[in-house]
Amino acid sequence: MHTSLDRIINDLETLATYTSTPGEGVTRSSYSKEDQMAKDYLKKEMEKIGLDVHEDAFSTVFGRREGKNPNAPTIIIGSHYDSVVNGGRFDGTAGVVAALETLRVFEENNIENYYPIEIIAMNAEEGETFGPGSGVSNSRAMVGTLTEKELDLAKNRFGETKREAMKKYGLVPDLEAAKRDMSKVKSFIELHIEQGPNLEAQNIDIGLVEFLAGIGRYMVKFHGKFEDSTASMDTRQDALIAASKFILALNQLINELGEGITGTVGMINVSPNSNQYVPEFAEISVEIRTMDKTVLDKVNILEEFKKIIEMIEAETNVKVEIEERARIGYPNPTPPSVMDKETVKLMEDICDELNYSSMIINKGTGHDAMITAEYVPTNMIYVPSKEGISHHPDEWTDYEDLQKGIEVMLHTVKKLCQKG
Amino acid sequence: MHTSLDRIINDLETLATYTSTPGEGVTRSSYSKEDQMAKDYLKKEMEKIGLDVHEDAFSTVFGRREGKNPNAPTIIIGSHYDSVVNGGRFDGTAGVVAALETLRVFEENNIENYYPIEIIAMNAEEGETFGPGSGVSNSRAMVGTLTEKELDLAKNRFGETKREAMKKYGLVPDLEAAKRDMSKVKSFIELHIEQGPNLEAQNIDIGLVEFLAGIGRYMVKFHGKFEDSTASMDTRQDALIAASKFILALNQLINELGEGITGTVGMINVSPNSNQYVPEFAEISVEIRTMDKTVLDKVNILEEFKKIIEMIEAETNVKVEIEERARIGYPNPTPPSVMDKETVKLMEDICDELNYSSMIINKGTGHDAMITAEYVPTNMIYVPSKEGISHHPDEWTDYEDLQKGIEVMLHTVKKLCQKG
Repeated sequence: MHTSLDRIINDLETLATYTSTPGEGVTRSSYSKEDQMAKDYLKKEMEKIGLDVHEDAFSTVFGRREGKNPNAPTIIIGSHYDSVVNGGRFDGTAGVVAALETLRVFEENNIENYYPIEIIAMNAEEGETFGPGSGVSNSRAMVGTLTEKELDLAKNRFGETKREAMKKYGLVPDLEAAKRDMSKVKSFIELHIEQGPNLEAQNIDIGLVEFLAGIGRYMVKFHGKFEDSTASMDTRQDALIAASKFILALNQLINELGEGITGTVGMINVSPNSNQYVPEFAEISVEIRTMDKTVLDKVNILEEFKKIIEMIEAETNVKVEIEERARIGYPNPTPPSVMDKETVKLMEDICDELNYSSMIINKGTGHDAMITAEYVPTNMIYVPSKEGISHHPDEWTDYEDLQKGIEVMLHTVKKLCQKG
Repeated sequence: MHTSLDRIINDLETLATYTSTPGEGVTRSSYSKEDQMAKDYLKKEMEKIGLDVHEDAFSTVFGRREGKNPNAPTIIIGSHYDSVVNGGRFDGTAGVVAALETLRVFEENNIENYYPIEIIAMNAEEGETFGPGSGVSNSRAMVGTLTEKELDLAKNRFGETKREAMKKYGLVPDLEAAKRDMSKVKSFIELHIEQGPNLEAQNIDIGLVEFLAGIGRYMVKFHGKFEDSTASMDTRQDALIAASKFILALNQLINELGEGITGTVGMINVSPNSNQYVPEFAEISVEIRTMDKTVLDKVNILEEFKKIIEMIEAETNVKVEIEERARIGYPNPTPPSVMDKETVKLMEDICDELNYSSMIINKGTGHDAMITAEYVPTNMIYVPSKEGISHHPDEWTDYEDLQKGIEVMLHTVKKLCQKG
């Protein structure tokens, strides 16, 4: 019972040709001709191995291998097939191919599964396409948290809203129809490239995830007054002074909350950004990460920010605005996404048996698995990613490394799909 | 007795043709072919009105109209004839033309002068050419504060040191020969475009200067540690936290020093400047302006900065570097350059007589007048500058506005050059 490197390579190389930017990485935007071509290829491959293929109202493709007990909850495996502009061939796609190859091996070896198994190939995972907060769209549609409002909110680079783009593509956006009863799902497993340097740097084959930190994103803007450097200190409205106060107050707040949360101001832009002038305007990004669910019961982050802002406005005479840049319909910040512990242990054992090295990596960007983790036992398998590069034409994972991840998925699913 | 608008226009338009970037503003870099052409034109014009012309070791041109008392101290009038890259036709040049036109009127009207009068046309005023701290070079050579070291320090955009560029241009840089006995100078008057928006915005003809704030410039660099936004708060070395602490500590220090000084952080650059990462590096500009000489007796700014830095390094584990970007051989910050009060009053009266509106503008960038103000009674006349733009091809002053400034210079010099 083995996965086939040739088939894996063929899948990835074929899917990489469905791009609107040949020679400049993979550009397979949601609701494009290229995404349609990739979907058609995946459906055809699923049909070849006898899967029952269907597509939902949001262009998520499911390929079902019926279980001995058709009424038992389903094991779902897969990822997404859309990409950013000038992205790589692995982000998302690798996880879809992993699921496809897993069920090919099942079919080839007549492996019996008590629980039904479904490949899931999702669209619209990349938040870049329709802007901040718009990502992991199809998994949100599946669990039922995507909203009508969101479909009309932001536009893609062609000036179309999500609803408009979907209609043009031939879909009728029906939120109700796309919802799935998650109580009838046994588990979700997603393989993904690491999008970080850890596995490669430490020469480790497999990354396993215990939890992914929750996230909250904010932009804070400071509106001061333009003056030259001889202006009296008394009457200044210095946007950078106000921003500095916010940065330090945030730091203090988060430090006081203790271990389960971090807060980072990683970006600051000042205008006019000249040594000769009092900054008229400053904006900073605030990124909150949560590792402990309970920390969010102790504090309302946005309310705390508002208190800090009120104090700063009084002290500096600078007007401060705060804007949440979170996933729509979700609390900001979100709680951490906790993966299924038992399955992490199972995967570790499988790695040992297969003689693969593994490590825990509790780091990652947004994934559909973060969405499902709230509803069903969820796990991720990371494979090495050259120099941690992703969302770029240089994104690369050696096919042999990817195959190891798929072997782990195969053995995990083989174990989970048995009765008892 | 009147200045001639035609001659003024002709001077400026002719000098504007001596540029290495025709059609893209005036580029008349120090020690270039274009600066030689401008200098030759000025010498010729000076000779036409019978001035005794000579050039010093740093290519400053003097045109002397002898006084009834040749041993009486000299009134010097003028400015500089070099420009930045893609600058305008007025910055510096307007002041040289003002001096030239003043002595033309003297000659035309046989005005007697007890005190000798000299036009000064300086080179190497623009600090851009050889980098920060290298400006107002010829006035510094004249008063004797330019150093040998500086000639070999920084390079122009052609990779030449000041000494190399001067030699190529045919000069023998002789600091001793360029020094002038400032006790034999009665006063220095410089006309300059405002390089600020005040006169135009308030529709006022003439700006008079009581003092120009002294200046101190520093770059502060913060070296932290690159980590992602999930990194524990405890062990971070956040360059932006350290920079914020510096910004607020500086603000407090300067506020405590009271009225005679300001401190501004106008520029901040952070790396990698991404919402997802703890800033690894930050750099900020610090600009100190002094309006009161005595404030610098109370405090050693650099020592205070070092105390702040020591505290921040201990608190944040971020390494902090500070670099002075001041004029070489000068204290950093410099004390304010105080102009001659009596002459400001005289100029105000002249404006009234001529029916010109005037205002005091104690703002300005670096000028040769700042250097001479420490040694001899010095004054400046500002003329309006469209939208305050300078150092740019769009720099513009209406010729009629410039003529008013030259009339004020003419009447001032006429008054000052009489005995008693």
